Formats: sequence, structure tokens, C-alpha cells
Amino acid sequence: MDLLLLSNSTSDDGYLVHAASAITELADGRTRALFVPYAGVTRDWDSYAEQVREAFAPIGIAVDSLHQQADPVAAANAATLFVVGGGNTFRLLQVLRQQGLLDVIAGRVRSGDARYIGWSAGSNLATPTIRTTNDMPVVDPGGFDALNLVPFQINPHYYNLEIEGFRGETRDQRLAEFTTLSPDTPVLGLPEGDWVRVSGNRYTLHGEHAARWFLGARTWDVTAGPLAQPA
Amino acid sequence: MDLLLLSNSTSDDGYLVHAASAITELADGRTRALFVPYAGVTRDWDSYAEQVREAFAPIGIAVDSLHQQADPVAAANAATLFVVGGGNTFRLLQVLRQQGLLDVIAGRVRSGDARYIGWSAGSNLATPTIRTTNDMPVVDPGGFDALNLVPFQINPHYYNLEIEGFRGETRDQRLAEFTTLSPDTPVLGLPEGDWVRVSGNRYTLHGEHAARWFLGARTWDVTAGPLAQPA
Repeated sequence: MDLLLLSNSTSDDGYLVHAASAITELADGRTRALFVPYAGVTRDWDSYAEQVREAFAPIGIAVDSLHQQADPVAAANAATLFVVGGGNTFRLLQVLRQQGLLDVIAGRVRSGDARYIGWSAGSNLATPTIRTTNDMPVVDPGGFDALNLVPFQINPHYYNLEIEGFRGETRDQRLAEFTTLSPDTPVLGLPEGDWVRVSGNRYTLHGEHAARWFLGARTWDVTAGPLAQPA
Repeated sequence: MDLLLLSNSTSDDGYLVHAASAITELADGRTRALFVPYAGVTRDWDSYAEQVREAFAPIGIAVDSLHQQADPVAAANAATLFVVGGGNTFRLLQVLRQQGLLDVIAGRVRSGDARYIGWSAGSNLATPTIRTTNDMPVVDPGGFDALNLVPFQINPHYYNLEIEGFRGETRDQRLAEFTTLSPDTPVLGLPEGDWVRVSGNRYTLHGEHAARWFLGARTWDVTAGPLAQPA
């Protein structure tokens, strides 16, 4: 099972540029990917697919978009590389569930028939549930269970700013709510620019910034390198 | 139907102090309130109820907490003033649904038998759905429908900061996702310190900061005073 789970897509150097070599390594010679644009809400899926197509072209990977397939289930069953873009996690999960694609994607990645690249909402989707997304619940996805391809939750775009005058919760306070109600489920706070490479049951953190584990009442930081599963 | 929907509870002068006169006006002589502490996740409900009790004591209102009632449904059916605290909106909705209290509370407020004070998650709860909460979906509430006591959504703690280096969505981008998928539902972005007083079908905005309406692709600011329902 091979996955690349990115915190974010944009970078100072351009769209997905920070992850180009990691994408090349993950693709392992595959020259065709199936893109899932359903997290896009305020952008139309055609232009989202075009942006991803342009980012993947220099890497030598042609991109088909799931929303342009006559038979999405057949397309997913034939795909060897899934690319799941960010946007709104609730919307992403809703559309995949409506189209009956969750089991198809999970099955192909689990069997090794396909590899998986996700960023932001696409990384949330690979975890057990979407319960640690930062997104607004703009639609009801019909249940929070997701692909469950890794045994921990991810919180993308992780940071813990205290904003002057803001009286809502900080990110750490929100994640503490999760770990209070689910004390046995680890959450990885993944900062901008970082990603996790999953290979079987080996996990490696990449990126410049320390990530943060949350488990029960404990939190601790980890830097790039092999990522031990917390217990 | 009489409601007081606050953006937030804390203020520089102390807990709920900024809203004390508004609470007195809303209570209209009632000297007993039923507090709903279920949005509290990382704090225990006993201490949450105690904090609210202390804040309401100077106003001359005694506070019972729903979680300390032997028969919560009977207590809700007897209450004449509901006070619904902030915290996590998903948790609040989950517990109220599990206890079969949503219809009871909505019915008593709609009939005029009880009045309603909410802040943050408690304000989200009074709207048609919780789909414009800022909270993390740490538990699945079993559906997003809420009390539907006002004909518009509220986004509490409203602000639209752009944070250097943060590559996730801004608040306005999140709300634009909502209005893209629900173009006919108005959302009121309610800044810190502000509140809405509902009296029948009259709505009045209070507070120092301009609030912002979001409806379809349009947004516009409104200042304290009568709040016209957007159409």
C-alpha cells in the first residue's frame, strides 16, 4: 500500500511544486492518474482538473478527471494512481459516497493495484474519519467514516496561532476536543509544506516543519524521518 | 418568540458581562433558567454550569443545569428560559438529539412558553442547520438539522483574517462554499461582541462591529439596528 499525504498544494514556487519529486517517487513510473476534483466547491471541476493537469504534465503524468468519466466506477476500478485534491472535505466525502466510490478506491489502494496521492481534504479522506478536518460542514456527507487507509487521523494545515481579539477555539483546543472524546485515536497535526509517505505500514514524515502528535491528553512534536505510530 | 443570539461569551470585562443588560431584558422578569452545557467537551459540565451560575447570579437569575436533572425531558418541558452555552456544536447537537430534546426546546420557544439565550454553538443551534459552525466535527451528530428558530444561518466569531503562510481557506472562502451549495440561504457573520435580538419576526443587531450578510454571490455589511431579512 503506497500513499502520499500532503498538508497542502500551494507553495511559494507554484502549485504542487514543493511536492514534485515526492509525486515522481510515489508514481513509480505510472504515466496516468485519475483525479478526484469533488472537494472543489467555489471552483468548477473542469478548471480544477486543468490546474492539476498542468502541474502533473512536467512530471510526465497525464491526468483524467473522475467527473469527466462516463462511468466513474469503471474508471476508478481501472485506475492505478488516484489523485485526490483539496477543498471541502464534507463535499468530497458526500459526492464519493453518492457515487459508490469509497469502497472501490479503498479496495484498490489496499490491494496495491493503485497508489494514492492526496492533499488537504484528500489527506483527510485517507484517514479513518473526517472528524479532524478544518473545513466547514457545508453539506451533510451522510456519515463521517472515510477510506481508513492509515490508522491515525490527520489535521492538515496544522498551526496553533493565538489571534488577538478572537474568542473562538485555537486549533489545539479543537484537537483536544477530539482527543477528549476519542482518547485512543492518534491525530497527526501536519504543518504547511509537510507530507507523510506511507509504504505498507511504514510511515515517513517529510518537510521543514515539526509535526505534532495528539493522543489522549498527550501531545509531542516530531521532525522529518521515520514516523513511529504512537501507542 | 424571543431569543438572544450572541457571538461569544467572554469579554475583557469578564464572562458574559458584555451581554448582562441584554440578558436582563430578554429574561423579562424570569428568575430561573435551564442551562444546556452539552457543547462543553474539554471542560466538565459541572464546572461549566457553575461558571454560568456565577455569571447569572448578579442578574438575579438562578441556573439549573440540564445534565443534573433526573428527567431532562420533563425539565425542558417545564423551563421558561433556556440558556445554551458554546463549545463544540457537533457535540451539543449530538447529545440533544440522543436525549430527544430538540423538538421539546424548539416547541417551547416557538410557542412563547420559553425564551432562548445562546452563544457561539448555542447560537448555531437556533438556526436551521449547524452547517455554518466553525467547530471541528469531532463527533457525528446524526444529521445537521438544528432548531430552525430563525430563518437564516449564523456564523459566530466572524472575522476574515488572512494569516501569513496559512494555505487553508479564509472564513469568507468557507462561507462562500456554503452559499455556493445553498445559494438561497442567508448567513449572518456575527463578529465578536455582537448579538441578535429576535422578537417574533423582528431582528435587531447589537454590538460595536459591523456584521456581514452572505447570500448567494453577494455579501454586504450591516451595523447595529433593525436587521432586515435579506431576500
